[in-house]
Amino acid sequence: MNSISPFAPETEYQPLPVSGVRFATHSCGLKDSGGDDLLLVALPEGTAVAGVFTRSSTAAAPVDACRANLPLGVARALIVHSGNANAFTGKMGEAVVWETSAAIADIFGCSPRMVYSAATGIIGRSFSPEKIVSHLVDLAGRLDANGGAAAARTIMTTDTFPKSTSRKVATSQGNIVLTGLAKGAGMIAPDMATLLSFVFTDAKIAPTDLQRSLNVANQKSYSKISVDGDTSTNDTLLLFATGQSTAETLSGADLAVFTEALTDLLKELALLIVRDGEGITKFIKVDVNGARTDAEALSAARAIAGSPLVKTAIAGGHPNWGRIIMAVGKSGATVNKRNMSVNLGGIPVARSGDPVAHNRDEDLNAHMGGREIHIEVDLAAGTASDTVYTCDLTYGYVEINAFYKT
Amino acid sequence: MNSISPFAPETEYQPLPVSGVRFATHSCGLKDSGGDDLLLVALPEGTAVAGVFTRSSTAAAPVDACRANLPLGVARALIVHSGNANAFTGKMGEAVVWETSAAIADIFGCSPRMVYSAATGIIGRSFSPEKIVSHLVDLAGRLDANGGAAAARTIMTTDTFPKSTSRKVATSQGNIVLTGLAKGAGMIAPDMATLLSFVFTDAKIAPTDLQRSLNVANQKSYSKISVDGDTSTNDTLLLFATGQSTAETLSGADLAVFTEALTDLLKELALLIVRDGEGITKFIKVDVNGARTDAEALSAARAIAGSPLVKTAIAGGHPNWGRIIMAVGKSGATVNKRNMSVNLGGIPVARSGDPVAHNRDEDLNAHMGGREIHIEVDLAAGTASDTVYTCDLTYGYVEINAFYKT
Repeated sequence: MNSISPFAPETEYQPLPVSGVRFATHSCGLKDSGGDDLLLVALPEGTAVAGVFTRSSTAAAPVDACRANLPLGVARALIVHSGNANAFTGKMGEAVVWETSAAIADIFGCSPRMVYSAATGIIGRSFSPEKIVSHLVDLAGRLDANGGAAAARTIMTTDTFPKSTSRKVATSQGNIVLTGLAKGAGMIAPDMATLLSFVFTDAKIAPTDLQRSLNVANQKSYSKISVDGDTSTNDTLLLFATGQSTAETLSGADLAVFTEALTDLLKELALLIVRDGEGITKFIKVDVNGARTDAEALSAARAIAGSPLVKTAIAGGHPNWGRIIMAVGKSGATVNKRNMSVNLGGIPVARSGDPVAHNRDEDLNAHMGGREIHIEVDLAAGTASDTVYTCDLTYGYVEINAFYKT
Repeated sequence: MNSISPFAPETEYQPLPVSGVRFATHSCGLKDSGGDDLLLVALPEGTAVAGVFTRSSTAAAPVDACRANLPLGVARALIVHSGNANAFTGKMGEAVVWETSAAIADIFGCSPRMVYSAATGIIGRSFSPEKIVSHLVDLAGRLDANGGAAAARTIMTTDTFPKSTSRKVATSQGNIVLTGLAKGAGMIAPDMATLLSFVFTDAKIAPTDLQRSLNVANQKSYSKISVDGDTSTNDTLLLFATGQSTAETLSGADLAVFTEALTDLLKELALLIVRDGEGITKFIKVDVNGARTDAEALSAARAIAGSPLVKTAIAGGHPNWGRIIMAVGKSGATVNKRNMSVNLGGIPVARSGDPVAHNRDEDLNAHMGGREIHIEVDLAAGTASDTVYTCDLTYGYVEINAFYKT
């Protein structure tokens, strides 16, 4: 139905296996397409876990369950289904999580509090726990360390391509691996700007350190992207550390190296999500400089990235930068109106509070006609800066969300 | 270019003349279409004025000037141009306001601080003050008490029909008249959800009372509508009271009657703006009940009305109410998830935290296929309620804003 994003990679990425992590997928009929929609991930004993979740007050049942499990800090399995978000499904929805977790705990011989759940898809449609539970024994029998690519495909909904990436990182304790999966497409907005993302590493890291790393990395990645300004009921970012590498427990400088690699990996996944934004024809980078504070830099960048009028102007290829001024104005960020400047593709269109009467219309139109758009704004109010990534708002977005049921 | 909104009135409204108020319009070449784009309104000596303006930090030069004039509380003229917002036009933009006000003050023999300015149209395009000043003497010679309908046409930009209405009101002091003009279409969001609106009355009211009435009426009208969540640099709502009616200065119960009539008039104009929302095919009323506080009721209603995913679902005619749950979740309003309920067109789709397995799919589809959509949400968290009006998000919105320059 949806044509593949023009920003899709030419070939499907094959993520690196992570020692101790095994995947199995299946179709249990939640996706209308009949494709795989059920993912089981097995994790070895001693796996530490960290998580970040949607701030929605109507969060889905799996999110509530993850939050309740997290203080224990230990995971043995992850169960994910796509096609149905299990959000606003009342008592039946809670039963899906409980019964699924209990069945997996039985199979793996662990506490149900070590089983993590996530879901994505349509909201408010109930289904019986049996729909998942009946497949679990079969799934547990087919676990495969090389199943990462299939896992990335299984969690897709309106995504037009699977998203995964890996990093090999050297620490003073030895080499470690990180592999991350993500799915996005729509309902993408800060805070917690992803639908689902799962990262696995064979590093040995204490749960509290793991959570601190994840918070830092999330702030610099998923919190800096936007597709449509809507926030999912299901946003879930989980990080599992199996401790199966030869490296000893990471701390100090090694932990910093890990956090940097994790940030880099999440940034790549976050940008893949934007590059698969629903109906995308243009990828947009918004740089805000000269802000009074970091918070105001982010707020101005988000206002520009989130404005339907900015996004439609870019869809049309017009250098209609007045809408950028408008968006900054509504952001609440302090602005020195008489000194504010705007560049498009490096070309000044406004300088020190005045429009630039430029002779570079051709260059400007060429930039706006391209696929990668760069907006730079200087608020002239301080020295803080930030960057947010987004995509344009097109007929395609309306079509996907108005005329197809997801 | 833009087809006329399906919600346009069949015949153009002819607003009632207001004693002491005279209009003249002209084309000075700011609108690409060549239509009238310059409006001069003359007001008699002793006219009181009140105003509400955009909260944008990149407000246009005319807004800054109105704000500066307002403490004086007295007006003799209003000059409005459309097609160019005179926003982010630097020193040249300020000169347009100063020189225009000075020239009108000369003609009318008043202080330039009694001349009010407003503008709407493209942002960041400079023009010379002469473009307006050269027409002022001619305009002043053609002032006409019956020019209200032409005035409403002149201030239009992407509006597909002119917006005006009048009220005749009986007070204990005698009858008074109110006539209001408005223009909207895009960049419509609270707070101060209009581009331009001007209200004239022949009542005699002290400036401080007038401002208090306007604040109340604005909160109940323009602050309750949304088209696209963007906020204009030029939003201006001005209320002029000429005091030329036979009624004495209004106070007490008469002032309350006036405030009620003003609220009713602004509500009608606000709904006309929504009914001319860019690309509209469906008019949406969002009722939120059971909120913990008034502020939370408004915030939840605005989140629903502003969500691109809700608005595209409605464009497609789908009862995809999970997106309403999502929007409430991101609003920050307190929600009793296990007791929350949602109706569409009066038909329950979620009750007490559970989806309704209903047998009324036909009724539901009939309602969603109609032109007037009614969303009701009960947050089950308290007793506060509010209502917000909006429109759907369509191909038409994208087309107007991506592929035509405004």
